[in-house]
Amino acid sequence: MFKFERTINYYETDKMGIVHHSNYIRFLEEARCAWLESIDLNMAKVESLGLRIPTIEVHCKYKTGVTNDDKIIINLAVEEFNGVRMKIKYKITNAENDALVMEAYTQHCFTNAEGRPINLKKNNVEVYEKFNSLVDWGSKIW
Amino acid sequence: MFKFERTINYYETDKMGIVHHSNYIRFLEEARCAWLESIDLNMAKVESLGLRIPTIEVHCKYKTGVTNDDKIIINLAVEEFNGVRMKIKYKITNAENDALVMEAYTQHCFTNAEGRPINLKKNNVEVYEKFNSLVDWGSKIW
Amino acid sequence: MFKFERTINYYETDKMGIVHHSNYIRFLEEARCAWLESIDLNMAKVESLGLRIPTIEVHCKYKTGVTNDDKIIINLAVEEFNGVRMKIKYKITNAENDALVMEAYTQHCFTNAEGRPINLKKNNVEVYEKFNSLVDWGSKIW
Amino acid sequence: MFKFERTINYYETDKMGIVHHSNYIRFLEEARCAWLESIDLNMAKVESLGLRIPTIEVHCKYKTGVTNDDKIIINLAVEEFNGVRMKIKYKITNAENDALVMEAYTQHCFTNAEGRPINLKKNNVEVYEKFNSLVDWGSKIW
Repeated sequence: MFKFERTINYYETDKMGIVHHSNYIRFLEEARCAWLESIDLNMAKVESLGLRIPTIEVHCKYKTGVTNDDKIIINLAVEEFNGVRMKIKYKITNAENDALVMEAYTQHCFTNAEGRPINLKKNNVEVYEKFNSLVDWGSKIW
Repeated sequence: MFKFERTINYYETDKMGIVHHSNYIRFLEEARCAWLESIDLNMAKVESLGLRIPTIEVHCKYKTGVTNDDKIIINLAVEEFNGVRMKIKYKITNAENDALVMEAYTQHCFTNAEGRPINLKKNNVEVYEKFNSLVDWGSKIW
Repeated sequence: MFKFERTINYYETDKMGIVHHSNYIRFLEEARCAWLESIDLNMAKVESLGLRIPTIEVHCKYKTGVTNDDKIIINLAVEEFNGVRMKIKYKITNAENDALVMEAYTQHCFTNAEGRPINLKKNNVEVYEKFNSLVDWGSKIW
Repeated sequence: MFKFERTINYYETDKMGIVHHSNYIRFLEEARCAWLESIDLNMAKVESLGLRIPTIEVHCKYKTGVTNDDKIIINLAVEEFNGVRMKIKYKITNAENDALVMEAYTQHCFTNAEGRPINLKKNNVEVYEKFNSLVDWGSKIW
């Protein structure tokens, strides 16, 4: 499990006084990029390996709102991975009071630089093994 | 079913040359607001009735990318409604070649201006009847 | 002079209940792209000619706020052009009451696909003549 | 002078592979909020004092692009302040190679919670003195 902390910006709020729901999709991407960086596989490296990791599915359940200057913690874990697809789950909490802000998952595939889907197991064993070693198979970690 | 056409802006693309996946959540909101307007219930009216319709769940499956100046059509339909929750489904296609761009749904609840959940059936029968008359119960319209 | 009408989206508001000031920069780009389209030179064509028109300067004076569902009119005119740089000015008004919303200008240069600055007079006479014929030399049009 | 460091997110890039120029306006706001926090006057406190600090003018000169995972440093200083208006200037550099990324300034006024312009010297002497003590009168600090 990976933890990412993040402060809400004023421009991310909307007329209701809380973060607009579309922005959370961006926070998930920030957490994902920070996580890739933490496993020595940042986006620049991903790209230099001729890989792309597009998002093919997003699911979010919004629980409580947060507003500017609030701090959130994004917990991230790889839930499923088979070389062709990767499912990542997220739990966002308010850092100050531990309130549940959002539960989410994203699905990703892997492509080459031209956007053609690939199987990491055949295409890049090293990256395959790295992701594979991080999967929380079956266990409910939260 | 409601149809909403929309042209992609340059600032909505990302480094991959296509629309960043977070922006589709905003397109869905645009379609939803245009649909509310079309049933004589635009956001200003919703607010003047002391109502809010927050988004509590989002699910998106991304099929093919689009880029700046592409035109998309968002098909929108109410799938479920019971006065407390409303589920709206969407199908986005590329207006030029009919390619499927995205399938999605959003879940909403209803609250008063203070954010307290309400039941439209008790709280505002007129709005309740309006939404209720629009539900495509059970039928798969796409 | 070119006119572009645009409705404000909910997600473009912020906690103050009005459009966040950063979004106007995007509205200017929308108007610019629509204007380029209107002179038969849309972004796809610009790119196919091996040209880029990056923004190198932005200046905005915010006068009155607008909020979701408000309609704005962006008036756009080329103020200066010499083949190397182009200065575009904008006046945004509220379509309903004619109130002045913003005055702005943007400066652009021209580059090839690799980002190297070019002089349109040498590089593409046809595009040079097109922009040159549109300059409101000296005259104050608003 | 205040320094603010910030990493570029993937979703802030556009089709040209670099940060879309509208996003810098948001980075300036982030730096401004962090600066207000550093002088014990964060936005929550500003709001609790019944104050608003709207942006009434923005000027940006874009020098070189940055892309995802790049780190930028935003230098911020109060250039002018008289209780009614405040002019803040910014210089953004690339943290890795010190390249100049942007020069900018923003103008702000002060209003009460209802949006009516106020003079801090009359309205809140404590805040007036705080800002006044931070002005780099006349001196060119960069």
